[in-house]
Amino acid sequence: MRTLVSELASRLGQEVTLQGWVHRIRELGKISFILLRDRSGIAQLVLEGRVEFPVESVICATGAAAANPKAPGGVEVQVREVRLLAQAAADLPLPVNQDPGKLSLDAILEHRLVSLRNPRILSIFRVQSTILKHFAQHLRSEGFTEIKTSKLIGTGTEGGTGLFTVKYFDGKVYLAQSPQFYKQAMVTAGLERVFEIGQAYRAEKHETPRHLNEYVSLDVEMAFIDNERELMDLECRILKSIFQGVGAENRAELEAYGVSLPEPEAVDRIPRISHDEAKQILCSRGARRVFEINPEGERGLCAWAREKHGVEAVFVSGFPRKKRPFYAYPLGDHSTMSFDLLFRGLEITTGGRRINELPMLLESIERFGLDPKSLSDYLQIFKYGSPPHGGFAIGLERLTQKILGLANVKEASLFPRDRNRVRP
Amino acid sequence: MRTLVSELASRLGQEVTLQGWVHRIRELGKISFILLRDRSGIAQLVLEGRVEFPVESVICATGAAAANPKAPGGVEVQVREVRLLAQAAADLPLPVNQDPGKLSLDAILEHRLVSLRNPRILSIFRVQSTILKHFAQHLRSEGFTEIKTSKLIGTGTEGGTGLFTVKYFDGKVYLAQSPQFYKQAMVTAGLERVFEIGQAYRAEKHETPRHLNEYVSLDVEMAFIDNERELMDLECRILKSIFQGVGAENRAELEAYGVSLPEPEAVDRIPRISHDEAKQILCSRGARRVFEINPEGERGLCAWAREKHGVEAVFVSGFPRKKRPFYAYPLGDHSTMSFDLLFRGLEITTGGRRINELPMLLESIERFGLDPKSLSDYLQIFKYGSPPHGGFAIGLERLTQKILGLANVKEASLFPRDRNRVRP
Repeated sequence: MRTLVSELASRLGQEVTLQGWVHRIRELGKISFILLRDRSGIAQLVLEGRVEFPVESVICATGAAAANPKAPGGVEVQVREVRLLAQAAADLPLPVNQDPGKLSLDAILEHRLVSLRNPRILSIFRVQSTILKHFAQHLRSEGFTEIKTSKLIGTGTEGGTGLFTVKYFDGKVYLAQSPQFYKQAMVTAGLERVFEIGQAYRAEKHETPRHLNEYVSLDVEMAFIDNERELMDLECRILKSIFQGVGAENRAELEAYGVSLPEPEAVDRIPRISHDEAKQILCSRGARRVFEINPEGERGLCAWAREKHGVEAVFVSGFPRKKRPFYAYPLGDHSTMSFDLLFRGLEITTGGRRINELPMLLESIERFGLDPKSLSDYLQIFKYGSPPHGGFAIGLERLTQKILGLANVKEASLFPRDRNRVRP
Repeated sequence: MRTLVSELASRLGQEVTLQGWVHRIRELGKISFILLRDRSGIAQLVLEGRVEFPVESVICATGAAAANPKAPGGVEVQVREVRLLAQAAADLPLPVNQDPGKLSLDAILEHRLVSLRNPRILSIFRVQSTILKHFAQHLRSEGFTEIKTSKLIGTGTEGGTGLFTVKYFDGKVYLAQSPQFYKQAMVTAGLERVFEIGQAYRAEKHETPRHLNEYVSLDVEMAFIDNERELMDLECRILKSIFQGVGAENRAELEAYGVSLPEPEAVDRIPRISHDEAKQILCSRGARRVFEINPEGERGLCAWAREKHGVEAVFVSGFPRKKRPFYAYPLGDHSTMSFDLLFRGLEITTGGRRINELPMLLESIERFGLDPKSLSDYLQIFKYGSPPHGGFAIGLERLTQKILGLANVKEASLFPRDRNRVRP
């Protein structure tokens, strides 16, 4: 019967069997010390003789759990028998048992299967798992239905640019940029409240710390809303659940990264400013002529929110029509019921109310100079009555990045895809 | 403040505002009756005068909730004011308010955005959402971490056949057939226990009631197992959680489909037979010369399990090496530590222990006549020590299909993709 490292302290004086990876080896004369790593932590093993296998080998060790104040967790295992389950090669391309801070991102991604063994790097994805859990759990608690929709689409809803092409039998299809079309369809079909966790694809040649060509989109769509404020309220409730969940379940990871998360009260304080106000704030902070909110502007607005409201996040709403897609619900002649959420200097959400009335949608399509024929599938959603609705999407990797204070969004993707990287 | 249909009974005598879709209209002289559908149910509205909009229009109706034993739920709303939120076109291509039993699958899929409005069809996806919930919830309760891995792969782990090609900037990549490579990588990196819910793609020209070219795979992988029996035990615990969850949260849907789910005790009774025993059983039931278990054989084995063990499911294990991929862990010279789960006549799971030792893996690759160079990324997983591990995958749409007794797996996919269908 296996004992986990985290259970060792409760087994003092008993014989235990641990299984895991050889994290570190130290030899002192006739005695060797092994730090053994399993999914629950790291424990010290003491054994006689030399260690005949390199670090990262997988072993099964049996012995007595004994108190030792110098050992991690105050317990060590005095090993009677070691069984080698899988021997590692000795030429690790990068160290697993050291702070990865000195490694370049390129080295980390090039040797991804090894770098993920580093506990600090791996812990990013424990946090990500908790985010996924609380995103879904919160939405279910508010009556949302989880949907899974196709990522292979016949035509692009948002125009054909930026789409990856897939050879599909004798024809071709595209990888979906977002489940926008489908979540609107499912709200309209009667589910009213839906969420989807799924991949999204952007065939853009960007090479920035904030872009991925494949990412996980946390998508939400909700019927019977009047305006975008209800969506911002919902997003605040979701974020509170995620922050509280990560705070409770990933305390060690947050401490290791030296970060903390906004308290629920701070989330309630997130300011909501219009796009015009955002530009004024940036001007008042020294920016010259602000036409749109670029990455530097996103950082400036979050700095402003931290100084003024004690929270590093801000909702910007009322984007001009020409900066939003044709389906954004108009507010007056030039504005829209749309918003972005900026968090710790980065846009992590775009959302808004959508046009749900067919005549208004046709007018908007004309205004944008688009061809209604190319949007015929999309228009079908509205032909037989679609309720007022809207939604938003949170980028999973961006949220993970900003929670942990990572420099590059690629660090928050297990196997990131960029223009030059499709392996491993 | 909106009242949901499900809350009506608690608002007797009060003024309420309902929002939803016009499910049915009946006019009796100067009085009209509308059945209004929202996400929680169907309620009767009574109003004076004629109804000026067709079924499926979206309305907001305000009036008094009054007892009426003849109305659904025993309550109706005597409407004072109706507001039209979105008018439907009058040419519905198929009826939304009738039993869809008479519609062909082709008509249902051709007019998917309309057919999903049918409450009976839509309820399939309420059940599917509950399956997703309990799959994840159960695995988290056993210490599993949820992962999200890339669906764009540089090379095919399982050989290049059956892969869709994606044009990726100046090169090409493939859509992943399964997250096999990545879940093994993450178990090996130290998470030990992982699950993933994600799309999987098969570029096969099949046209059967059991195949999709894009489906959702519920993937599980687990370290420190000795054999495939621990995986079958785990799958039984997962299925019990799913069956109990669906039984509790989707009672109405199960009743509407006239189906029931195996009790926990029945899941414990699922027989486990070897591939050889399976062939003998099929022979003893009248099949001629059984070489492999085909769809008819899967139905025969489930019929046998129902008659013999009172449960419509059976684990078949010990598949011959030549019928399994090169990475299946050998058992003796010709067999493997692998299994399938057949449920209600259909294979819904394939799994097994994987080879985790590099020398054994290289030997197996040679035995299968494969080129180790083409598998170099895969082999990297094992170079630095991989624990004994194994896993399995459950097809979400197949499980949904078999829970509800649907004739075709495409009915259990919101927007199914087949050789001829990539829309909507």
